[in-house]
Amino acid sequence: MEVRSVHHVAFAVEDLDAAVGTYQRLFGARIELRGRMEDQGVEAAYLRIGDGRIELVSALGEDTPVGRFLAKRGPGMHHVAFEVADVAAALRSLASAGAEVIDQEPRPGLGGHEVSFVHPDSIQGVLVEVIGA
Amino acid sequence: MEVRSVHHVAFAVEDLDAAVGTYQRLFGARIELRGRMEDQGVEAAYLRIGDGRIELVSALGEDTPVGRFLAKRGPGMHHVAFEVADVAAALRSLASAGAEVIDQEPRPGLGGHEVSFVHPDSIQGVLVEVIGA
Repeated sequence: MEVRSVHHVAFAVEDLDAAVGTYQRLFGARIELRGRMEDQGVEAAYLRIGDGRIELVSALGEDTPVGRFLAKRGPGMHHVAFEVADVAAALRSLASAGAEVIDQEPRPGLGGHEVSFVHPDSIQGVLVEVIGA
Repeated sequence: MEVRSVHHVAFAVEDLDAAVGTYQRLFGARIELRGRMEDQGVEAAYLRIGDGRIELVSALGEDTPVGRFLAKRGPGMHHVAFEVADVAAALRSLASAGAEVIDQEPRPGLGGHEVSFVHPDSIQGVLVEVIGA
């Protein structure tokens, strides 16, 4: 499996507006995209920092994956996303290598990218997103 | 303050060799650099994944910052590093913006880069490293 790049690193935040402001003020971040994904229970934003990208993710409710993450661990680093040419092929490659794939099929993420997640138990506690270009 | 890029995202791991193997096997990672920093109590490796970079950090003992992190939270995401042209200038900029800088002066990190850390309490729970080119 060939990864093209680290597409983004994502942080779970309690207050999306406040967090966007922190990264703008401290690091000169620029908003690239912001949107709600009701089916995933999140409101999120991509921010460019130099030529890199971070994602800030807030929960739309307590009983959502990010809401439960925040209740358990507090705000902080949430996942890293590796960009690949073909998400479905990457999932097959990961599954055949013994990784536990959370999404069996790619699903749409922020900005319409195809995305899928790999369970942190397969990768030393790190939640990895595989994302299409 | 101007950030050039996301230099790397770092993960705390229990077993550096095993973790390097996981990223090689699952994501085609290539080792860029590996070394021990006794004064910081870590053995670490930079891995390239596509044109991105991750760092895997293991503890040289339980009574080290990463050792305590692992005991408290288990393996997982540890910090993100933003690359800047001038670390000392970035620290002054961050301090004047009210961020709590952990290292008042840049210190040498893996590969001889100047590095400094900003306290997670200043950045919604995220430990940020500022790193020179």
